[in-house]
Amino acid sequence: MTGIKTTGEKKLMVLAGRAHPDLAKEVAQQLGIELTPTRLFDFANGEIYVRFEESVRGCDAFVLQSHTAPINKWIMEQLIMVDALKRASAKRITVIMPFYGYARQDKKHRGREPISARLVADLFKCAGADRLMAVDLHTDQIQGFFDGPVDHLMALPLLAKYVGEKVDQERLTIVSPDAGRVRVADRWTDRLNAPLAIIHKRRDPNIVNQVTVHEVVGEVRGRICVLVDDMIDTAGTITAAAEALFENGAAEVIVAATHAVLSGPAVDRLKNSRISEVIVTNTLPIPPERQFDKLTVLSIAPLIARAIREVFDDGSVTSLFDGR
Amino acid sequence: MTGIKTTGEKKLMVLAGRAHPDLAKEVAQQLGIELTPTRLFDFANGEIYVRFEESVRGCDAFVLQSHTAPINKWIMEQLIMVDALKRASAKRITVIMPFYGYARQDKKHRGREPISARLVADLFKCAGADRLMAVDLHTDQIQGFFDGPVDHLMALPLLAKYVGEKVDQERLTIVSPDAGRVRVADRWTDRLNAPLAIIHKRRDPNIVNQVTVHEVVGEVRGRICVLVDDMIDTAGTITAAAEALFENGAAEVIVAATHAVLSGPAVDRLKNSRISEVIVTNTLPIPPERQFDKLTVLSIAPLIARAIREVFDDGSVTSLFDGR
Amino acid sequence: MTGIKTTGEKKLMVLAGRAHPDLAKEVAQQLGIELTPTRLFDFANGEIYVRFEESVRGCDAFVLQSHTAPINKWIMEQLIMVDALKRASAKRITVIMPFYGYARQDKKHRGREPISARLVADLFKCAGADRLMAVDLHTDQIQGFFDGPVDHLMALPLLAKYVGEKVDQERLTIVSPDAGRVRVADRWTDRLNAPLAIIHKRRDPNIVNQVTVHEVVGEVRGRICVLVDDMIDTAGTITAAAEALFENGAAEVIVAATHAVLSGPAVDRLKNSRISEVIVTNTLPIPPERQFDKLTVLSIAPLIARAIREVFDDGSVTSLFDGR
Amino acid sequence: MTGIKTTGEKKLMVLAGRAHPDLAKEVAQQLGIELTPTRLFDFANGEIYVRFEESVRGCDAFVLQSHTAPINKWIMEQLIMVDALKRASAKRITVIMPFYGYARQDKKHRGREPISARLVADLFKCAGADRLMAVDLHTDQIQGFFDGPVDHLMALPLLAKYVGEKVDQERLTIVSPDAGRVRVADRWTDRLNAPLAIIHKRRDPNIVNQVTVHEVVGEVRGRICVLVDDMIDTAGTITAAAEALFENGAAEVIVAATHAVLSGPAVDRLKNSRISEVIVTNTLPIPPERQFDKLTVLSIAPLIARAIREVFDDGSVTSLFDGR
Amino acid sequence: MTGIKTTGEKKLMVLAGRAHPDLAKEVAQQLGIELTPTRLFDFANGEIYVRFEESVRGCDAFVLQSHTAPINKWIMEQLIMVDALKRASAKRITVIMPFYGYARQDKKHRGREPISARLVADLFKCAGADRLMAVDLHTDQIQGFFDGPVDHLMALPLLAKYVGEKVDQERLTIVSPDAGRVRVADRWTDRLNAPLAIIHKRRDPNIVNQVTVHEVVGEVRGRICVLVDDMIDTAGTITAAAEALFENGAAEVIVAATHAVLSGPAVDRLKNSRISEVIVTNTLPIPPERQFDKLTVLSIAPLIARAIREVFDDGSVTSLFDGR
Amino acid sequence: MTGIKTTGEKKLMVLAGRAHPDLAKEVAQQLGIELTPTRLFDFANGEIYVRFEESVRGCDAFVLQSHTAPINKWIMEQLIMVDALKRASAKRITVIMPFYGYARQDKKHRGREPISARLVADLFKCAGADRLMAVDLHTDQIQGFFDGPVDHLMALPLLAKYVGEKVDQERLTIVSPDAGRVRVADRWTDRLNAPLAIIHKRRDPNIVNQVTVHEVVGEVRGRICVLVDDMIDTAGTITAAAEALFENGAAEVIVAATHAVLSGPAVDRLKNSRISEVIVTNTLPIPPERQFDKLTVLSIAPLIARAIREVFDDGSVTSLFDGR
Repeated sequence: MTGIKTTGEKKLMVLAGRAHPDLAKEVAQQLGIELTPTRLFDFANGEIYVRFEESVRGCDAFVLQSHTAPINKWIMEQLIMVDALKRASAKRITVIMPFYGYARQDKKHRGREPISARLVADLFKCAGADRLMAVDLHTDQIQGFFDGPVDHLMALPLLAKYVGEKVDQERLTIVSPDAGRVRVADRWTDRLNAPLAIIHKRRDPNIVNQVTVHEVVGEVRGRICVLVDDMIDTAGTITAAAEALFENGAAEVIVAATHAVLSGPAVDRLKNSRISEVIVTNTLPIPPERQFDKLTVLSIAPLIARAIREVFDDGSVTSLFDGR
Repeated sequence: MTGIKTTGEKKLMVLAGRAHPDLAKEVAQQLGIELTPTRLFDFANGEIYVRFEESVRGCDAFVLQSHTAPINKWIMEQLIMVDALKRASAKRITVIMPFYGYARQDKKHRGREPISARLVADLFKCAGADRLMAVDLHTDQIQGFFDGPVDHLMALPLLAKYVGEKVDQERLTIVSPDAGRVRVADRWTDRLNAPLAIIHKRRDPNIVNQVTVHEVVGEVRGRICVLVDDMIDTAGTITAAAEALFENGAAEVIVAATHAVLSGPAVDRLKNSRISEVIVTNTLPIPPERQFDKLTVLSIAPLIARAIREVFDDGSVTSLFDGR
Repeated sequence: MTGIKTTGEKKLMVLAGRAHPDLAKEVAQQLGIELTPTRLFDFANGEIYVRFEESVRGCDAFVLQSHTAPINKWIMEQLIMVDALKRASAKRITVIMPFYGYARQDKKHRGREPISARLVADLFKCAGADRLMAVDLHTDQIQGFFDGPVDHLMALPLLAKYVGEKVDQERLTIVSPDAGRVRVADRWTDRLNAPLAIIHKRRDPNIVNQVTVHEVVGEVRGRICVLVDDMIDTAGTITAAAEALFENGAAEVIVAATHAVLSGPAVDRLKNSRISEVIVTNTLPIPPERQFDKLTVLSIAPLIARAIREVFDDGSVTSLFDGR
Repeated sequence: MTGIKTTGEKKLMVLAGRAHPDLAKEVAQQLGIELTPTRLFDFANGEIYVRFEESVRGCDAFVLQSHTAPINKWIMEQLIMVDALKRASAKRITVIMPFYGYARQDKKHRGREPISARLVADLFKCAGADRLMAVDLHTDQIQGFFDGPVDHLMALPLLAKYVGEKVDQERLTIVSPDAGRVRVADRWTDRLNAPLAIIHKRRDPNIVNQVTVHEVVGEVRGRICVLVDDMIDTAGTITAAAEALFENGAAEVIVAATHAVLSGPAVDRLKNSRISEVIVTNTLPIPPERQFDKLTVLSIAPLIARAIREVFDDGSVTSLFDGR
Repeated sequence: MTGIKTTGEKKLMVLAGRAHPDLAKEVAQQLGIELTPTRLFDFANGEIYVRFEESVRGCDAFVLQSHTAPINKWIMEQLIMVDALKRASAKRITVIMPFYGYARQDKKHRGREPISARLVADLFKCAGADRLMAVDLHTDQIQGFFDGPVDHLMALPLLAKYVGEKVDQERLTIVSPDAGRVRVADRWTDRLNAPLAIIHKRRDPNIVNQVTVHEVVGEVRGRICVLVDDMIDTAGTITAAAEALFENGAAEVIVAATHAVLSGPAVDRLKNSRISEVIVTNTLPIPPERQFDKLTVLSIAPLIARAIREVFDDGSVTSLFDGR
Repeated sequence: MTGIKTTGEKKLMVLAGRAHPDLAKEVAQQLGIELTPTRLFDFANGEIYVRFEESVRGCDAFVLQSHTAPINKWIMEQLIMVDALKRASAKRITVIMPFYGYARQDKKHRGREPISARLVADLFKCAGADRLMAVDLHTDQIQGFFDGPVDHLMALPLLAKYVGEKVDQERLTIVSPDAGRVRVADRWTDRLNAPLAIIHKRRDPNIVNQVTVHEVVGEVRGRICVLVDDMIDTAGTITAAAEALFENGAAEVIVAATHAVLSGPAVDRLKNSRISEVIVTNTLPIPPERQFDKLTVLSIAPLIARAIREVFDDGSVTSLFDGR
């Protein structure tokens, strides 16, 4: 006998970047573990330093980072963490991006543009990621950008359950804020068995690229309209859509979206709008100064924790997709 | 002086598989060249034989194949042609798929499904393709599935020009046959400055996966409705949509789509429907027995030929995208 | 302690395409398991749909497909299954091709041909295969086409045992049907300790590529000749060889080959020949209408099942090669 | 004749990110061209948008970006530009990083650290870079991190020429600020034929990781000391070294370095020190508020422009290395 | 106008390792050029140093090395040359191996062996080779081991022309020295329109792996036998085969082979045999002390030079394959 | 239930090439195992044959080879062993190079040179290596040349412990033999808390590349000087350095280095020098005829064995780096 035999073991570890510590802590808590202690700081010129303070050799590593502002920094930090894990002999590396940065650049709108969402997938693969986990990708096709398994989690059941319990379903109409987001709305109509309406942006043929009219396609008069989208960024589209709904006789407008990007004027726009409630999840951190009365934040941590556990145990994550 | 110096030359060659010889010939004609003579046949057990009968060394090769039935065979033939070109020292290989096979499997609808559209892109890369050219991809994100340049040509200007010249634009409404195809319809409304309607398939909450109602979202009464899509496969969706439009008072229904897949019952359904005209292109071959009176076929060959020439000359293909 | 530790487990699963369900079932039976339930069908335009109906996460997957007609379809189906397994987080994927499609295109016979056998290996690697398993490759070098482990199983012991028990070994001569297949015959002579003869195809120097004479090189008069090859395709070579043997005084001619491709005129040629028995294995399906009296089919399933089990258990497959 | 033949052409284009527009303009000016017009801006959430406003098809592209603060953003911007160039069919892509970000993380100082300098090389390769060009890499080994050609330009001749013309060479001593940078100092001694001294940081054996003494190894009394390094970051090392030199009797201390990172307290430290002159290049932008009297900035643009031209013309860049 | 345009040029350069300088010089001479001056030497511990003494930027490089003893050193030298070319921006790199080292290890004869011939192909690809050129590969399948174009040159016309002019073709019989080499013999019979014989090594069933009898399969009595093979290594097989031929009444035995490996006892065996002439090419160097009276060496240089020129000019190398 | 489940196992195996059998045996002994029996020999023309005589399927393989002369042969042997392991389904392959061949060619000193140290890393990756293990790399950056984990072991604690116990630390000065090796010396000074000196090679400005003076930078008069380096090759630098130290009044000179390359004149130079002791490890074999009285050889085997065990057990190797 020329070797040594032992029983195989496997070890789950969760590591987190600095972008969204609250979510990371909550996920760890849900799993009943501590985050692997990690030293992370910026050098004077902005270069990031990473070191794990515990051995990660042979572990099944889950690296969590929310792609919030400054987004390029946090993406780079996560890439560097993956490199460090690879070189420290982690056995398998799953990159968790509750919000997938650059997801909206998932195609060339015009010639000579990048497809940055594909680039992001490739960069993580290149750094050493074996798998991705993300919540509500901007388009489902992004799963196909990564050369390997992608666990695509759905916040829809969470959001829809909340809405369904709160609102009289008889009066509900699901509204897509533009033609490109109808698929998301379609899933909501299935789940809550509600009719659909769409805000259609017509361009003035005499003015290039100028949207002049927000047509409401479908019936909204007297209805409780739930405007649904995957994310709220500057809230420009969503508040214009809400306005159009009220102009067409909507009784009430609620907004539900997974990712609370809330950039620039978003908070002011939402606060000042006639929208009665904005429901989001915490895939992205929302600092206290960006929170406001009408904002309801549901936690995504239990979903992510369950998915990590299933992936580690080779269980079936498909059950987490029932939002489809 | 230790070497030999000469002026560089480049040479364009167009090669075609056996799936759609008419289109290939027309493209070559438009370019003013002959197709490179190629020996192609099946062995007794169905394995495909390929040999180019002229040197392709150093050439800028464009390999044209339409992914029509038997689709797996024609994809394989094109892969084998690419392998043969690579091993025969072609300098650059552009794969032209007027219709991109498996484009609809561009995401996992449910767990444990493949993403075959990504697989197809990877197989061509693996065989040796440097670039892809395709017409009206099922979703724009498929561009991001290929690791390299993709020339994405648009048939919309061709189709819309035909429709615009034929129909009274004042009476026109553009209709998307389901929620997932609204983006295509949106582009048509921009181009023809027409209002939008959508057929929304509601599922009966008591019956799993069963579509019971085709709701028409938007105004269609008395309108000339142009149902638009990227492809017509079995024509089930499109004819059901047409029916719903008539039930909602549409004056006339025209169908416009780029890819005439026309599988199984498609021809009968279309013939027997109240649709007045079906406008498609020849990205896929339509055998005589599948042609019918109401069918208008516009040729895509001039667009492909122009794109090949621009790519060869390092011109700008962006001008061919103005359908966007 | 910052993670979760558990004992590692591994799980074998066998999945099968639609090309040869009988063989798949027999292999599963030999292993004492069920095939993993898999949904497989063709869309109207011929595109293939795949979905595994049970979780394959973390499993050691063996994907069985026989490359029979329509061969390109079955290869594509197996590629798509591999893609689906990869994206569903299978831990290791072994592709089993009892008959390796395109194996005869293992070199360029002339310039500007593909090397399709290498292409096939690359396509499976690209789709996500970690390992290959095949029976009696057309040439041994094909093992080197795949960038990873190849389990190369030999049907020779099975076939030779059958022949050795049936025929008087004193009267036996092993015959190679042409110069290119002498290696296979050579192994048979070792195993059965019999003399060798070769059919040598001479070309007429005045007629290009025209075989005019089938010379028998070696002694066959009064002998029981066993014509051996890796496959019988159209049976043209083998029946011409048999004829040459009888002309040179052979007492009896038996044919033994691993792969029963039996394309086109094969069955008629064999039935109408003076060959007394044709012995093959079931690496490829033989539909009832292609079976005939003189045909003996030995099952390869026990060999494949044993190999799967050894690979799963990290046992030694080398013992399955003793035909060498 | 089955194709179209034309004479090959090649076209040089220079594209620049937003990090250091002055340097980009100066390089273009030296080449007698305009920078390729490029649209670059940040979306509200910090995601970067890129589009080239002129065709780059078939061009020999040089993409210039200085990795200054916010460093992760500028690296990401350059990666995205490379992706856009690749997808727009640029023929060859050379990434120019006058200062190579993360160059100091070129090895694992301790276990479980990343090697970020290798990661950066891999990310650019992954995005589509064919070649790199950089000035005075932190260590020469970084050339080996990139899988392809690296044009490594040297600022030493520029800096040394300036120093040599200004200072009495008889009185000159070259000083390395610590043991790790002796190689750079060694090249200076060769070039200016001057003696060498080293600042050796001794650690107190009783205090972990604490530098207690800055020993001057070599003769500096009465000498004009030129402290040389590849970069000045926080200037902590360099000002401590200068202090040690004065304490050991140095007559004057001058500092010469290629990269003026000048982070955090650097400017104050240098201004308040007894160092008489700080000579750097403009590989990194130095905003007006970080400039100061004793600072001399030499332009690296002519060197970069010459290198671009040689690379484009297939000339020899080796002549630009004569600092070695 | 934002760039610089010039006409493309291309430049051929031939570089040679130290294994076979005579062949390299002859090839260069045939092309009418000088070899690119290259510094090549061993460091004291055997590590190889390479530097090109002229710019190779943008060139079409052909790197010639014969894989003669010490074979591992010369393979490594060629790999290092390819690495240096890649890093020096050569545009295209063709590796020329007149004799392909490790070609005989082209499959696993038994479990747990390497496939070194595939490994060699991969190592050259990994180092940066774009293309391979080789003469008379041990098996044609080796072409498929390289992921890219392989120019496979044939020495058969050269050798067969010499034999055909010297020997009375009426009396000629082509003989394969064992079952594995019948393919080569088969090509000779086509070319010279001669009958075939085979030496069949029978193993004694009682003694494992022991060849006891060299059976001659086919007619050789009174014939002029030409024993043909791709290489002569120790000459054990070939001299035993010759002996068997004489014992079976052969009138004369001539040996023809492409590669004169001539290891160990080869020269003595051939000198002391009854073989009347041994005809080889100079794909491998034959030092004066290994030459002998009966040895005829034909030069392969004109064939290699023609192939280089055709590859550079994008001509057709297929015409150089007419040995097939 | 459709599969078979079992508990995972893992198995360590150590395999060794022929370069340094004593070290391999000692490592195995330290681990309490036998080396996996392996057949290794040269064919007559120098090609290497490898076969493992026991199943390696699923094992965690450690392949040990010292890159001693003939260095290219031993590198190739190790590459072939890795290929054989990969094809025999080893689960993970760690390449152990106690001395990393070509480590000194870790950058381009001048244009058109290779970076052979990177090439070596790539070749092992290409052959199938998952991980590297090495002792005292020539520069730490070489870790970054490999795309995967590198276990970098340090012999410094071993050597320094020996020196520290033997020599009066009060009288000790650590000396770097040239400017490029100061980093190693720096680590010694930390460990033994001793002052530093450097031998600085000044070049005569009138004579190109000619070192004329060996300046001693730092105080050595009356001191016990320990000249430290990673390797001793021809011993030219080290003996010249020792001479310079004695000329500057050193009381005694000891040499300590990890790798005893000892090429060409090394042994004579060291024997004839005034150096009192030369301390090395056995990372490379030292044949009896190259051993001499002043030479002390410490065994590296316990360190390598411990590292293998930690890697296999997923323990922390970081503790083996405390030389840092």
